Amino acid sequence: MNLAQLGEFGFIERIRQAVRETAESGVRIGIGDDCAVLELPPGELLLTSTDLLIEEVHFRSEWSDWRSLGEKSVAVNVSDIAAMGGRPRHLYLGLAIPSDRPLADLDRFLEGFLAAADEYGALLVGGDTCGSPGPLMIAVTVEGATPADQVIYRSGARPGDGIYVSGVLGDSALALRCLRDGLPPEPELAERHHRPRARVALGRALAELALPSAMIDVSDGLLADLGHLLRASAAGAQLESPRIPLSKSFRKALAADPALMELAMSGGEDYELLFTVSEENQSRLTALSGGVPVTRIGTVTTADRGLRLLGPTGRERPVDARGFNHFGS
Amino acid sequence: MNLAQLGEFGFIERIRQAVRETAESGVRIGIGDDCAVLELPPGELLLTSTDLLIEEVHFRSEWSDWRSLGEKSVAVNVSDIAAMGGRPRHLYLGLAIPSDRPLADLDRFLEGFLAAADEYGALLVGGDTCGSPGPLMIAVTVEGATPADQVIYRSGARPGDGIYVSGVLGDSALALRCLRDGLPPEPELAERHHRPRARVALGRALAELALPSAMIDVSDGLLADLGHLLRASAAGAQLESPRIPLSKSFRKALAADPALMELAMSGGEDYELLFTVSEENQSRLTALSGGVPVTRIGTVTTADRGLRLLGPTGRERPVDARGFNHFGS
Repeated sequence: MNLAQLGEFGFIERIRQAVRETAESGVRIGIGDDCAVLELPPGELLLTSTDLLIEEVHFRSEWSDWRSLGEKSVAVNVSDIAAMGGRPRHLYLGLAIPSDRPLADLDRFLEGFLAAADEYGALLVGGDTCGSPGPLMIAVTVEGATPADQVIYRSGARPGDGIYVSGVLGDSALALRCLRDGLPPEPELAERHHRPRARVALGRALAELALPSAMIDVSDGLLADLGHLLRASAAGAQLESPRIPLSKSFRKALAADPALMELAMSGGEDYELLFTVSEENQSRLTALSGGVPVTRIGTVTTADRGLRLLGPTGRERPVDARGFNHFGS
Repeated sequence: MNLAQLGEFGFIERIRQAVRETAESGVRIGIGDDCAVLELPPGELLLTSTDLLIEEVHFRSEWSDWRSLGEKSVAVNVSDIAAMGGRPRHLYLGLAIPSDRPLADLDRFLEGFLAAADEYGALLVGGDTCGSPGPLMIAVTVEGATPADQVIYRSGARPGDGIYVSGVLGDSALALRCLRDGLPPEPELAERHHRPRARVALGRALAELALPSAMIDVSDGLLADLGHLLRASAAGAQLESPRIPLSKSFRKALAADPALMELAMSGGEDYELLFTVSEENQSRLTALSGGVPVTRIGTVTTADRGLRLLGPTGRERPVDARGFNHFGS
């Protein structure tokens, strides 16, 4: 059976049957009407984000298996909810599919998508499907919710706040570098690139305790995303490069080629949480974590100091908060 | 200036500056953080729908101007909110853009998108942009809201209910037929194809009075969308083909080629409201309208009768509720 035989409505029905709705989810209707109809918990704010994943731009089918791609499509989108301290609730999946794509691949993609949705406590409640005369295109929208007094914006960082990041940085970019060079990445690196995890539990824990003054997720790269946060907060920062958390595999590669440090700073697709915490709240940080380590990597300064990098020799230099630019050369 | 010079973040900033936010909109933050953060009116349900528009599938750049395409991208999405009886509030725009696309075209697209958003009372509060190695791809998500007791589903049609449709059918499909044949469509037809209108005001008026027992918008074609409504309602229907409302331009073309009736039945992209009304509510219908005419075109029957078409000679025949199938041949 291929997609043309199954048809558009057959494919949608196949998706609908794969989704398990739960009574307590607040979903009045999911797939199967003109809109999804949804209740939000009383007093909570709605958080919404949308992401595109385009074949040959964000992924290559020869590098990633379909199940992982489904998982990743959810994780990168849900990561934006985590970065506000929210809880994901509803997912929407738009798929523009080249006509030669085997149904088995799409089934694996959906399997991964639904497994990840389940992991993060979100339901697939809508979407759109059509043919594509070009690459496979995936458009995902996520809706989450959170109590109004627990939203963490990018704009609250103040001079003196510590700058923290969860997990480790650079693994995903290093894996991509290997793939582009035609070398198999170490399994630890490949896993981080193909199956990133959104830090929903950590984001919720931080927001419930109102610890971060500002937060963002690292999708464009540490420098670029820190730049976004600093601009929104009208602040500057001193980053200490020796403190940037790296995995064992990354350290090994770095020992052979010190220039790889660039990937940890600007690589992107880490999906870790980058946040700032005031002096008085920093002692309360150690109490939480719970699996995911958080590392202090610098200090917020006044805006006029810009973004400065303190290297291993103690020398400080200004850096440009540039990240991945989709339209640049 | 082209897109590569402006850059991804420059393009997003350009969009952000073009959006006028209003204080009463309930938008805590729109473009500029990881998520949009939004308030819904207390006691209202969230309605969400998402649509893809792919170049060479849904539109061709040589047939439509960019401003109209921006307007249409909003209208087709907002039409799903109208079909539930809701009010649109927030829009999200995903754009995968071929690198050779002039910035002036994108500006015209945005102009149309924002003008239509304004017309329907919705704000652009988020999105995603990236390059496309293939066609231009547009992914739009809309969120609306409505009081919980005013949502109109597809599933409430009961035997004996009248079947109604707003406006006229077939114009958009006839315009597309002309364009495909290399003939210029009549201006009235072209307008309906390139600049369809979502029936938000009519949908709200119907929902406030709780008149429809079921409702859907006509995007896949009358027969297909009536089929969706009947399946959801576990009902059948008798459609009276002489009652199907047609424009002057359509009637003129039909007189020359009676086979065009097929386009009014199955053409799609009308974005009119198709709804059912119980016997006792039908007298209250005339009171409302207000610009958009509504026409009774048939009667809901029991499911076992299926979908039957009563022709001009009084002969009745079963029809297949087939519509546009994106993966079919």
